[in-house]
Parts: sequence; structure tokens; C-alpha cells
Amino acid sequence: MNPLLERALLYDFYGELLTAHQKGVYEDFVLNNYSLGEIAEDRGISRQGVYDLVKRCERTLKGYEEKLHLVERFIETKNEAQRLKKCVEHFRDTGDAGDLEQLEQGLNRIVENL
Amino acid sequence: MNPLLERALLYDFYGELLTAHQKGVYEDFVLNNYSLGEIAEDRGISRQGVYDLVKRCERTLKGYEEKLHLVERFIETKNEAQRLKKCVEHFRDTGDAGDLEQLEQGLNRIVENL
Repeated sequence: MNPLLERALLYDFYGELLTAHQKGVYEDFVLNNYSLGEIAEDRGISRQGVYDLVKRCERTLKGYEEKLHLVERFIETKNEAQRLKKCVEHFRDTGDAGDLEQLEQGLNRIVENL
Repeated sequence: MNPLLERALLYDFYGELLTAHQKGVYEDFVLNNYSLGEIAEDRGISRQGVYDLVKRCERTLKGYEEKLHLVERFIETKNEAQRLKKCVEHFRDTGDAGDLEQLEQGLNRIVENL
């Protein structure tokens, strides 16, 4: 997966398990693109302190995913839904009854993955 | 939601965040339906100790859901997929083009919810 997307998803899924302080710094760095120096000055901590905190957040978020795999489950479902959108389009173009079969099977997979 | 289903889903989603000891006791009680007394004897702890531990696990699991809402997100997606299965069936019966519209819109909602 694109590392930026992975980072965004991990934060979207598990970010609420970080402390308020961790979230603040992590958001400044990852979402708002402030530099380590800017965040350090702003928060009154060292540049190294900011760097360590960001790395620790990343490890924490990845640790949750290693245990729970919920981002992975969501991505599988999303990919399946995107594939099914193509089936609807294909059916519109061709009227191929096989597309309806695929839709039903794919929707079943989504239901069962949850 | 049915409380038994809620319990099962909370454990399915967040159970890996419990300790091995908590998981063992919680599974014995909730999944394997052992009594507090049986578990207490088996583990060499008091009946009250088992009860407290099960309650603490429940609070922990609910606490994760209150922060992350991932069970809720999954259930929304699952309900949408079930609704879309009915659209496919209805389309098979009637050939109503509105069903295809609904399918596309519903699949988009699934993609966007993730």
C-alpha cells in the first residue's frame, strides 16, 4: 500500500487510542505538514523529542493493526465494492447475466467479511 | 442491537487487545458458556474474581468501541450490502432500472464509508 495512505488509514482507524498530546503532535506533523523544528518551537520540546514522539505514535498505530487487522478488513471490503461497481457498469453495457451472479456473490462476501 | 451479538462483535473486533489471561477467562465464560464456579475452580481464583474480570473485559471492549466506532462502521456496511442484495433480487424479478441506480449509489456509500 502507498505509505501515505497507510499512515492516513492507521490514524483514521486507531488515532483515538493515542493520548491528546500524541494526537496533537502527530496531526501537526502528518496531517498539517509542519516541520519537526516548527512543532518543537510551538510545543516547547526538543526537535528530537518531537521526532521520537512521532515514531512512537507510528509504532503504536501499527501495533494495533498487527493485532486487529481492521484496516486490512476494510480495504478488502472497499476493493470488493469497487470491483462490484464495475460489474454494474459492465451489466449496463452488455446485459450479461453473469454480472448479476458476481454482484450477488460479491455482496455475500462483503456481508460475511463483517 | 441484540446484546449477545454485540458482545460477540466487540470480542471479534477488539479481543486481541485483552491480555492472554483475560482472553482465556472471557472465552470460557462468553464463548464456551462455563459457569463462574467452573472457571473459578479451573483457574484457581475466586468466583468473584472471575466475575470482576469478565466485567472488566466488557468495559474494556466497550471502551474501545466508544473511541473507535469500528463495529458500528462495519455494521452499517453490512446492512447496506444486505440491502443491495435485495436490489439485485428485485432487479432479477422486475428489470427495474432504478435498482441498478441504487446498486451504484449503495456501492459508492460502502466505498466512502471505508
